[in-house]
Amino acid sequence: MHYPVANKNGDTVASAVTNLDLHDIARAARTYGVKKFFVVTPLEDQQNLVGEIISHWTEGAGAIYNPQRRMALELITVSEKLEDVIGEIEKEHHQVPETVVTSARTEGSLGYAEFREMLKKEKPYLLLFGTGWGLTKDFMESVDYTLAPVMGRSDYNHLSVRSAVSIIFDRLLGNGQ
Amino acid sequence: MHYPVANKNGDTVASAVTNLDLHDIARAARTYGVKKFFVVTPLEDQQNLVGEIISHWTEGAGAIYNPQRRMALELITVSEKLEDVIGEIEKEHHQVPETVVTSARTEGSLGYAEFREMLKKEKPYLLLFGTGWGLTKDFMESVDYTLAPVMGRSDYNHLSVRSAVSIIFDRLLGNGQ
Repeated sequence: MHYPVANKNGDTVASAVTNLDLHDIARAARTYGVKKFFVVTPLEDQQNLVGEIISHWTEGAGAIYNPQRRMALELITVSEKLEDVIGEIEKEHHQVPETVVTSARTEGSLGYAEFREMLKKEKPYLLLFGTGWGLTKDFMESVDYTLAPVMGRSDYNHLSVRSAVSIIFDRLLGNGQ
Repeated sequence: MHYPVANKNGDTVASAVTNLDLHDIARAARTYGVKKFFVVTPLEDQQNLVGEIISHWTEGAGAIYNPQRRMALELITVSEKLEDVIGEIEKEHHQVPETVVTSARTEGSLGYAEFREMLKKEKPYLLLFGTGWGLTKDFMESVDYTLAPVMGRSDYNHLSVRSAVSIIFDRLLGNGQ
């Protein structure tokens, strides 16, 4: 989610797309069997940029250079807003997905073990990750579930979104539990 | 480890340092209470580049702009070769660290639960991660332990080194187990 997120000063902005977010999150999604990766930005030039990166790796020179990268990046769809993502999932699965948000700054009521159990049901779940300085408070309150934050061995919790997504996929879908 | 690693054709090379590897891995290290992050490259220009990035964020404008990033990047030391890293750890802890390597391509004999137990001992451990197309076979055979690969829900396993490091820290040191 590149909107609605906070910037460093707490203003609500649309953040810029980071190229390596697309690659790292798509590779993690493919590894953990996540079905789709939606990149949400209201900015048309950013939508076009993401579209160009995806086609380079799925149809262009990159697809020949690195077919495994193609398998990852073909999971990506660019969307203007969350409603479009939900509509697309509903069309595919004939069910509205339940939305789950995560944040380093919010306590969260849904635990990982509980969510692993929920994922066994035949029901679509949509995990939402913020970029920039995080999803806005209003947005956070509009979703179905808030997942407990990823914590290590300190109060410090400033993981990149790439790291946070990878860790959360592993906790929910990995073989290491 | 940026040497000795394979390139796409299987030749042994020194890979280039990726800026976001430094940031993401340092942030994950700080989150999970990892003591040090050594970046190993035999190339002098790459050592200088890493040095400049670290000082920007620990002493320069970046330290003022984002103090939390400083707390992460100050964990980084640049080293020419693994022997120097081992020497530095030995000097600090009066013990030679045990070396643990991970690879997506090697079965590995050390499980995560077992390694979690080992980490409770007062003993330094040095986790080694390859860049490029992975650490060379000879190098892999020279270390003390090989950790089981991170697997998701498919045969596809092409995580970025940033994702792999984050997931492995979480499996060994996270609160999600």
